[in-house]
This record gives sequence, structure tokens and C-alpha cells, in this order.
Amino acid sequence: MIYLDYAAATPVNTKAKQAMMPFFSEQFFNPSAPYLPAKHVRAAYAEAKDTLAHLIGAKGADLVITAGATESINLAFTACQGHALILATEHPAVQAAATAAAEVTEIKADRTGRIDLVDFRTKLTPEISFISIALANGELGTIQPLAEISAIINTERQRRLAAGEQTPLFFHSDASQALGLMDLSVARLGVDLLTLNSAKVYGPKGVGALYLSHDVRLKPLIHGGGQELGLRSGTENVPGVVGFAVAASEAKAHISSHRKQYQKLVALLRTELAKSPVEPIFLGDLKHQLANFCPVSFPGIDAERLIYRLEEQEIYLSTGAACAASKGQPSRALTAIGLTDAEIAGSLRITLGTQTTEADIKAAATAIVHVVKEEYDRQN
Amino acid sequence: MIYLDYAAATPVNTKAKQAMMPFFSEQFFNPSAPYLPAKHVRAAYAEAKDTLAHLIGAKGADLVITAGATESINLAFTACQGHALILATEHPAVQAAATAAAEVTEIKADRTGRIDLVDFRTKLTPEISFISIALANGELGTIQPLAEISAIINTERQRRLAAGEQTPLFFHSDASQALGLMDLSVARLGVDLLTLNSAKVYGPKGVGALYLSHDVRLKPLIHGGGQELGLRSGTENVPGVVGFAVAASEAKAHISSHRKQYQKLVALLRTELAKSPVEPIFLGDLKHQLANFCPVSFPGIDAERLIYRLEEQEIYLSTGAACAASKGQPSRALTAIGLTDAEIAGSLRITLGTQTTEADIKAAATAIVHVVKEEYDRQN
Repeated sequence: MIYLDYAAATPVNTKAKQAMMPFFSEQFFNPSAPYLPAKHVRAAYAEAKDTLAHLIGAKGADLVITAGATESINLAFTACQGHALILATEHPAVQAAATAAAEVTEIKADRTGRIDLVDFRTKLTPEISFISIALANGELGTIQPLAEISAIINTERQRRLAAGEQTPLFFHSDASQALGLMDLSVARLGVDLLTLNSAKVYGPKGVGALYLSHDVRLKPLIHGGGQELGLRSGTENVPGVVGFAVAASEAKAHISSHRKQYQKLVALLRTELAKSPVEPIFLGDLKHQLANFCPVSFPGIDAERLIYRLEEQEIYLSTGAACAASKGQPSRALTAIGLTDAEIAGSLRITLGTQTTEADIKAAATAIVHVVKEEYDRQN
Repeated sequence: MIYLDYAAATPVNTKAKQAMMPFFSEQFFNPSAPYLPAKHVRAAYAEAKDTLAHLIGAKGADLVITAGATESINLAFTACQGHALILATEHPAVQAAATAAAEVTEIKADRTGRIDLVDFRTKLTPEISFISIALANGELGTIQPLAEISAIINTERQRRLAAGEQTPLFFHSDASQALGLMDLSVARLGVDLLTLNSAKVYGPKGVGALYLSHDVRLKPLIHGGGQELGLRSGTENVPGVVGFAVAASEAKAHISSHRKQYQKLVALLRTELAKSPVEPIFLGDLKHQLANFCPVSFPGIDAERLIYRLEEQEIYLSTGAACAASKGQPSRALTAIGLTDAEIAGSLRITLGTQTTEADIKAAATAIVHVVKEEYDRQN
């Protein structure tokens, strides 16, 4: 089996899984209970939050733990008190959360998926109160210049202050795909809110976090016992958060060796795929791209068929975001960057992970080139 | 160590934990991904939902999976289109979710925690659109006559129909504490919505479910990729749901043997506690009480001190719902049933579980009687 869809799901890191185990059995106590063993569980939970927070240059108390990136994003949008700006290539979760919360305007992206800063400046009008731009796109791997974007936002904030305008302006970024592949610092990124996702970083599914700076005021989506500073009630998922923290720490510890490995393998993959009879178009911004991403289009070839043909050889990859692809919808992100219908229909999202080997890449590339050729011959 | 706070948290059942393991590692795929191994994961997820649903006489498609009971309750309340009625003894999650969603009126409960049906009939006025009453109370273990309540609701529905009134009327019950201790059937209970919780039934934390009948229309709290029929987006927590289903099935399989065991142990506990110099008041409705519950008050004794003294002997129990107790708030449920301040201050929630032995009960009872006596002597 060759799995090349790490952007869709990652196996849980062995150390993370081991760290979770005691919290299923002997340390199962409710962290809010009054006796000592429960307080130990509470302390372990707080420590895991601290560990996670430190990875992005924050404190544990700055994080709200959620059940995943989608919930984090929805919670982030409760800070929106008016009109929202999102990038046109955002994940369906951002698009849906934004639409549910506010009037939404989309910022254009260029053909590589990078934000159009001129369009952004134009659309950053006085009524905008919330901006959401993923640090790295989940289909293209394109990394956005968050610090530049944040500088523009700061200029607008200062203009509002000088003009006596009261509309707050918050900047949220979904860093689900980037965590584990980039060194993150909320201060350097200049964000007010940051979404993190355990399931993309070799942690357990069903766990996420939302970082928020001190001046952000959220409205809870889930009311109850008052956990997570009242912003997200419900008994804490202790094993999940412990696993998330260990997985994210492990990813951070190996960030540069993994990045080098991915860069080498992606270069090899591109070289091999170039042997296809249909010239591949490598998607995304090759200068600003997550190292493990190799999205590619074979224009005129039906990527859905490629995926089924490759599946027969136990090579697993996808056409785009799993949730959208499963409904047979064309990728909104690929449409938004102006690809032609043929380019979109011929698009594969190839994403590498910690277990990907050079042999995997060679075998997968050979198989892809082979099925592209067969499909090409069949059509011509 | 003697743990007698199973209403606050349960260790994960060994079979449930074993069932979860493959979904952390080799079967980690995103259930929405298009290739065969991911479809197997999707099938396992659907099967786990079916298993869970069958336990309450429903189908998998009738369940929305959530991150726990608190989220389920909040999601249930999105069906409320006007005024809500809740029982005065409801868990803080129900109180908070209700208050956030609607104008709320509380139905009285008697001193045993049973609903006052006369008060209920009086308050079930034409503007009521949602009713939430826990099947069994989390502090008293008191079981409510849901079928009787449901019959009253049906009469009101028929009256509205005859009168041409349009206000819908939905009945929700939080069955978190009851699942695993009672045979549940949504048809027999007569509910439109039912909240289930993995963490109370020896399943993993961070997983819950909401059953809904076909005529209920919910508004999603979490928007995104459209999972769970669009009612709760986010990549599915496959291991969590698989573990929940196995744990709940295991509980169901042993329901009558566990019940008999708990009845025997609780009877023993009551006999032993009666030897205390301060006469214990056994709280709740002893005829309609979850078999593993033995809430008790030693009026005039400070239960907080008892808990710390017992903790020194590694005997762990609580004063009430963990989330409220941790904030030092007096129990709303105990206040609502009209206990005196001295009775509330002297209340312990003792709840048994699958690992509780006769030796545990004898040792705990002896220790409790001893510390009650010491506290009594100290005060007098």
C-alpha cells in the first residue's frame, strides 16, 4: 500500500498513542472532580495545553480546546461583529462558518493560490470586522504571507483609531495543514486567532484548538459546565489533548528533517511525473508551498478515473479536500484560482507524510505515468 | 484506592479500548476519502452508529455524533423555536443551553427529585415549544416518568392541532446517566430527541450522540464539510465512535447483572451508613433511582471536609456534579428539591461502577461513618 493523502488524514504517532493510553484507563478521572487523582488528571491536561500553546509562542490559557478544526473555525467566527473577508480558496469549513456568521466577501487569489494583496487592500473597507486566511491551503499547499497581511490589517486598525471608528478588526488563520510543517509563532504571524487541528499532525481525530489573543471576545457555541473559561463547555477530552500535544511536539522536533526529506521526495516525484505523455502542471506556488504537497494536474485526463485505477494498485490519493470530493463537487479552491475545467478535472492532490519512502514515490510516479498514458491513449 | 464517583467519569472498557486501537493506526483514513481503505473506515463508522442507535431502538441515520453530552444538549436546543420548559433539577449543561437558546421556565420537582406533574401541566402553555427533562438526574439518580410526561405532551399536541395552533412542541431528554443502567427505547420513552454520552458508559471522553426523530429540524452549531447530514461538520472521530458503540453494547449486555450487583451493594452501603452518629438522609426517589446511585446527606456535617478526609484514605467521591462542585457553587438540583442548607452542605454523591466490590463498600462505609463521627465530635 502506498498512501499519499496525508493532507486528508494522518495515522496517530506511536508516542502520542502511548501517551494517551493511561488516560483511558487508570487516569480516567473527571478533571473537575475534587480528589487528588482527578487533580493530577487536571494538571496533565493543563500541561498538554501549555505544551501545545508553547509550540505557537502562546500560553495554555490562550487556547480553547475544541473537537477539531471545523469547530475552532466556527468558534473563531463568533468574534465577527459585521462583515467578513475570506480568501477565495478557503476550506469549505471556513466558507460555511463565515456564511453562517456574517456577510462575506472573498479576496482573490492568483493562479498559484497566493492572495492578491491589491484586491485585499481594496476590499478591506471600514465595515470589515473579521478576516480569515488559511496559513497554507489544504489543496494547493500554498503558504500565504501572513505577516504582510497582518501589517496591512494593522495599518487599517490605526486608520480606524485615528478616525474614531469603533469597528473592531480581527485576523484569524486556519493553520491546520501548516502545523507540523512550519515553525509557527502567533506574534510573528500577526494573527489574533489561530486554528490548530490534531488529526492533520499525527494526533487523534476529534481534537482541535483555537488560539485567541487577549482582546478577542468570543461567544460560546456550546454552553454548560463552564469548562475552557466558559468558551466551550463539556468534560475535557483528556486523552485526546494529551495525544495532540505529544503529536504536535514530535512534529515540531523533526520539522527540519521532515521538510528536507519531503523536498527531496517531491523533487523526485516532479521529475518522474514529467515523463507523462500529458505534460503535468504542478499546482500551487512552488516557492511558497508546504514541503509535503505536490498537487498536480494532467489537463484533459479524468482524475477521478486515475484515482480508481491507482486504487487497484493500492496507491491512495485524492482529488482535493476529502469532504468536498466525497460529494462530487468540483473544488472551489481550484475554480477560484482560475484553472480551466480541464485542469480542474485532471487534478490530483498528492501529499506526503512521515512514512513515505523514496521507493513509494518511484512506484507511485511510475503507476501514475502509466495510468495517465493509458487514459490518454483511450481518449485519443 | 476506592473510587465511588462513577457518575463523574468511568474508565474506558477494555473491549472498547481494544476496538478503538486499529482506528488510530492502520485504519486512520479520512472516512470521506475516495479509496477503498477509507471506505472501510466509513463503513466501520456507520456500523458503530447503527450499533449505538439500535441500543435505543433507532437507526444510525437518526443519530448525530457530537463531542459529548453538552454539545448534544446544545444542538437539541436549536429545535426550540420559542419558550422552553426544563426541570428545575437539570444538569448545568441543560440550564445553560436552555438559557442561551430561549426564554426558560422551570418545572418543580418534589423532595425526591421527581417531576411535579401538576406543575408541569400548568406550565405547559401554548407558547412552549421545547421541553427538556433528564431521564435520570445526575446527582440524585432519580428516574423521571418519561412515558407519562410524553403522554401529557401528546395531549397538548393534539389540543394545538385541533385549535389550529402552529407552535411545534419537542421533547428532549438527557439520558447520559441512564444509558448503560436502563433499557432505553426512544419509542417507549416518547422522546423526540435523546442525548447520549460515551464518557458515562465506559466509553472514551469527547464523544456523544443526539438522537432525533424525523420531524425535528435542527440548526447546526458547527458548519463546514457537511458531515452528519450537515448537522455537525468536521472529520468524524472514528475511534471515538467505535469505542462508544462497543462500550454501550457491553453495558447493555450486562445491564441486569450489573443492576442486581449495584442493588445489593447499595443496600449494604445504606445499612452500614445508618450506623453513623448523624442519621443519614438517603436522597432521591428510592423507588425510582438508578441502581448505582446512593446520594446521601449527613445534615450539619461539612461534606467538603468529609471528601478531603476520605481522600486521605484514598476513597474518592464527590458532593455533586463535578463541573459545578469545582467552582464551589451549591448544587442547584439539591436546592431545587427543597433541601435545607444543612442538608445540602452535608451531601455526598456516592455512585458505584463495574469495578466496585463488596469489600470496597464495606471499607468506604466504615471510613465514612468514622469521619462523620469525628466531624460530629469536633463540632459538638
